Amino acid sequence: MSRVGFIGLGIMGEGMALNLAQAAGRDLAVWNRTVSKSQTFVRRINKIGRECVILNSPAEVITHCDMTFSMLSTPEVANDVFFRPDGVLSGISHGKSLIDCATLQPTDMTTFAEAVKKKNGRFLEAPVSGTKGPAADGSLIFMTAGDQSLYNEIDKELNAMGKASYYLGEVGSATRMKLTVNMVMGSMLASLAEGISLVQQSKTGDSSIVEDFMSIISLGAMNNPMFQIKGPNMIKNDFATNFPLKHAQKDMRLAIALADQFNHALPVAAASNELYKQAKKHGHGDSDFSAVITPLIYKPSS
Amino acid sequence: MSRVGFIGLGIMGEGMALNLAQAAGRDLAVWNRTVSKSQTFVRRINKIGRECVILNSPAEVITHCDMTFSMLSTPEVANDVFFRPDGVLSGISHGKSLIDCATLQPTDMTTFAEAVKKKNGRFLEAPVSGTKGPAADGSLIFMTAGDQSLYNEIDKELNAMGKASYYLGEVGSATRMKLTVNMVMGSMLASLAEGISLVQQSKTGDSSIVEDFMSIISLGAMNNPMFQIKGPNMIKNDFATNFPLKHAQKDMRLAIALADQFNHALPVAAASNELYKQAKKHGHGDSDFSAVITPLIYKPSS
Amino acid sequence: MSRVGFIGLGIMGEGMALNLAQAAGRDLAVWNRTVSKSQTFVRRINKIGRECVILNSPAEVITHCDMTFSMLSTPEVANDVFFRPDGVLSGISHGKSLIDCATLQPTDMTTFAEAVKKKNGRFLEAPVSGTKGPAADGSLIFMTAGDQSLYNEIDKELNAMGKASYYLGEVGSATRMKLTVNMVMGSMLASLAEGISLVQQSKTGDSSIVEDFMSIISLGAMNNPMFQIKGPNMIKNDFATNFPLKHAQKDMRLAIALADQFNHALPVAAASNELYKQAKKHGHGDSDFSAVITPLIYKPSS
Amino acid sequence: MSRVGFIGLGIMGEGMALNLAQAAGRDLAVWNRTVSKSQTFVRRINKIGRECVILNSPAEVITHCDMTFSMLSTPEVANDVFFRPDGVLSGISHGKSLIDCATLQPTDMTTFAEAVKKKNGRFLEAPVSGTKGPAADGSLIFMTAGDQSLYNEIDKELNAMGKASYYLGEVGSATRMKLTVNMVMGSMLASLAEGISLVQQSKTGDSSIVEDFMSIISLGAMNNPMFQIKGPNMIKNDFATNFPLKHAQKDMRLAIALADQFNHALPVAAASNELYKQAKKHGHGDSDFSAVITPLIYKPSS
Repeated sequence: MSRVGFIGLGIMGEGMALNLAQAAGRDLAVWNRTVSKSQTFVRRINKIGRECVILNSPAEVITHCDMTFSMLSTPEVANDVFFRPDGVLSGISHGKSLIDCATLQPTDMTTFAEAVKKKNGRFLEAPVSGTKGPAADGSLIFMTAGDQSLYNEIDKELNAMGKASYYLGEVGSATRMKLTVNMVMGSMLASLAEGISLVQQSKTGDSSIVEDFMSIISLGAMNNPMFQIKGPNMIKNDFATNFPLKHAQKDMRLAIALADQFNHALPVAAASNELYKQAKKHGHGDSDFSAVITPLIYKPSS
Repeated sequence: MSRVGFIGLGIMGEGMALNLAQAAGRDLAVWNRTVSKSQTFVRRINKIGRECVILNSPAEVITHCDMTFSMLSTPEVANDVFFRPDGVLSGISHGKSLIDCATLQPTDMTTFAEAVKKKNGRFLEAPVSGTKGPAADGSLIFMTAGDQSLYNEIDKELNAMGKASYYLGEVGSATRMKLTVNMVMGSMLASLAEGISLVQQSKTGDSSIVEDFMSIISLGAMNNPMFQIKGPNMIKNDFATNFPLKHAQKDMRLAIALADQFNHALPVAAASNELYKQAKKHGHGDSDFSAVITPLIYKPSS
Repeated sequence: MSRVGFIGLGIMGEGMALNLAQAAGRDLAVWNRTVSKSQTFVRRINKIGRECVILNSPAEVITHCDMTFSMLSTPEVANDVFFRPDGVLSGISHGKSLIDCATLQPTDMTTFAEAVKKKNGRFLEAPVSGTKGPAADGSLIFMTAGDQSLYNEIDKELNAMGKASYYLGEVGSATRMKLTVNMVMGSMLASLAEGISLVQQSKTGDSSIVEDFMSIISLGAMNNPMFQIKGPNMIKNDFATNFPLKHAQKDMRLAIALADQFNHALPVAAASNELYKQAKKHGHGDSDFSAVITPLIYKPSS
Repeated sequence: MSRVGFIGLGIMGEGMALNLAQAAGRDLAVWNRTVSKSQTFVRRINKIGRECVILNSPAEVITHCDMTFSMLSTPEVANDVFFRPDGVLSGISHGKSLIDCATLQPTDMTTFAEAVKKKNGRFLEAPVSGTKGPAADGSLIFMTAGDQSLYNEIDKELNAMGKASYYLGEVGSATRMKLTVNMVMGSMLASLAEGISLVQQSKTGDSSIVEDFMSIISLGAMNNPMFQIKGPNMIKNDFATNFPLKHAQKDMRLAIALADQFNHALPVAAASNELYKQAKKHGHGDSDFSAVITPLIYKPSS
């Protein structure tokens, strides 16, 4: 069996590619913007007894492999790597398959898919739910759309990297799903922020009452892993970044833009989005998205 | 040991009083507006080998028992039962203790507490988190405030009815906590409603995609028991009432009013509250609060 | 003809009472919490050739006059002056008429009206639109409700103090109208604040562009006296108080509470209200309500 | 002096071009998608003693004239007419000037400007405030940006079509101003809709009270021509289109997108936008934007 290509060895890609090698038993061909990162990666792959070659361009990876995964961090980088002269698209031809795992706009995915199909390649849109930890653990959730035959063929690879995968129909569906999931997540966390800040405001005396609040939440029907992690951090004003607020806000914005196409009202997401924007303006764009609490906890300057 | 008094054998009270008899091993004295309900209740109590007398007024229950629990459904009923000539207050004297488990306004609780203290009784505010099921199972969560010595004495009784209890300070604190918890719950469910309705709107073809959405949510960090129950119901437009929407909206309104006293902005709760009001106007006040999705899923008349 | 009573010679009341004397040609009997203010007022009345006696309590004013106007600033003061032992109500008997011009809650007005009627007096609810200037100019707008025969009899007096008056039906209607008018006003000014702050944010280079914005607004269909006054003040961060922000916010809150009774959704007012609350928390409760712009114009500490 | 070019003789363009001929005394060269409209237009021009030739493409108009105004209705049409093979851009060369009066996205304007400059032409962005009436009356307001020398040369032409013009700096500034003005307009009208609908909901008996509401508004500091026209129409449910709701909503959406670039929170506009979207979904996209009241006045099906 030929090598699997992997483009983009960032926070997410590194763990994913490692799992491809280890759990799916595949040899790899990789390209990453920063070459030193690829070199470190090769040593890790070799340690687990698999092979990995570093190629000079995205196009070379596509040419070298029948199937390539791509995991890039922003729409700008993703578009550049796809369209540049030595980019992904220039390598596509009959027999080539691309699985794009980035979170872009639905229209980016449609554009990529059409370009790949025009050159007789196959395209699968495959954004993931989960951050660094699940990428390393192989417990991502894949939302996929596009070429269904390709989806069916990569069962082993998706299982190596994720704990579940969904095939959702035509290209765009997977990104729309991802944005909607993240929109609910953003509103939920903003709701918790309002609760915590209200307890802080309205408490009379007992300073541990906000911990009691989290404890009560954790015993009830609302209990969820995100609140368990983010709640205590909000209370401590600890915004060490797991998922950057600016990305959470971008996903909310794109979900609202998506709804706009259907004249679909989202008053709660719209209000949440404005709160994230305030937090971003207050300098918390790179903080964890739990910093959405910051505009609510005004501290007058002494 | 004297009997424990219990006033109000409604949906919640019945299960709670039964647990007091069974798990705390207490004999009871009860009063309920509808006498037939008390009679049925006595038969259930007798079956488990405990005694229960039916008294003719709230005042008689207080007079008869050192300690009385009260669980009434609305501020109107609670105020009437407390202040009427043969009501709770008229029975209070030195040595009498009242534990009020209703969800009222913070100011109602303060008024009750002051009136009880003036007559040398003891008062504990004790609203609960949990609905019919947890009341029957003895797995409620008690948020309490007021007389701390009383709180310390009723450990056995609270354990019989609940899985956890919190003492939060001066009277009003417990109701404020309850309202804040329910506010977060209301915003969370409105957030899910927006997500489900957006998937329904934006889906292309595949009709099971909204089930996929719930499945993806359930695999991630947002997963919580409430979403697992309410999500599928929202999808089926099944609004069989567990927690009435009008009560959920009332709690959000009171939480916002609470925040107002502190000039505390709650933009997400405010937007959610308007959505609940729309649902209420559309005729869903007595539906389950998951009917908050209804204003979002406009179906043009054919 | 007997004297007209006037209770409350504050910012609004002073101008109103002066117009009653001057334009309606009435002699007066007054009571004001601060006696020195009444003494100054008497000198002004005497200068225009009319008489004015200072009485020792609200009750005495009512007893002395067939018809009394009352203009008090807050619900707390209004309730105290009405119900205290030597208050308004204690003076009411057959033949006495009270016209209450304060902005209270609809339920305050209903309570006052019922108490007055029980003692065979007549009651007219009569909140006004307009601030200090219109009170002095006699150009207030009266919104009235309650005793229609009384309304018909005081045409001359209302004309002396206002440029228009409306009879709106049963007691409560006038206050509801007033709150709704002020709610629209609050949302409108918040809308302008968003526009001005967005121009300030998005401008590239030309520093006069925000003045151009106001100029463009003033030439179009949106042009209104409030924007012409408040816009330039917002731009200069000049929040010298004309109508205190805390009162504007209180009126929005009461309008939203009114709508709540009818399950009437007000998403724009709800969002505006949260913005006013933020401004209030930032220390602008006593500033002019144009300070609603302050939460939008975040200036990072250098 | 050479003819002035005019591209787009729609609702707005027809009145504008007529004023160019009449008030500025210019002969014209025109192109319009529907030729019959151009022919009717020529007859009107001839009647007032000026000449007008109909050309076969946008490019021919540019080639024929030194200066051309363009007024197209949507971004799609505007982009097509600009970029198509026989479009505006293909006619641009040294000495040619384009004044684009459409309301597009700021980035469309930047793209057009750069393309024109690359071919040594001059470009002025010039969206207008005002609808059909002001276009016919010559009382539009021009917001312009881009080539300042061109702006200075067309004083006479702008005066013929408008009552005021503003030069705002680099390309993009004028569209940003236009969007911000329309955002305030959209929030203002939504605020009025909330007020009218609340009066309708909360009235007791008197059916003319909503007319009283408009009358009270008209006497106060909020009074403005837009409310005077739209208010009575909202009351009558008369949504005959002056400015289509879908365009108002689009402008709000673009203003919010603009603010997003600056992390600028606009909670009131965001809430208003969701209300416009609801109205659009309810089938009022082509109604006048005063139909924003429709989601607020729920009428249960009998």
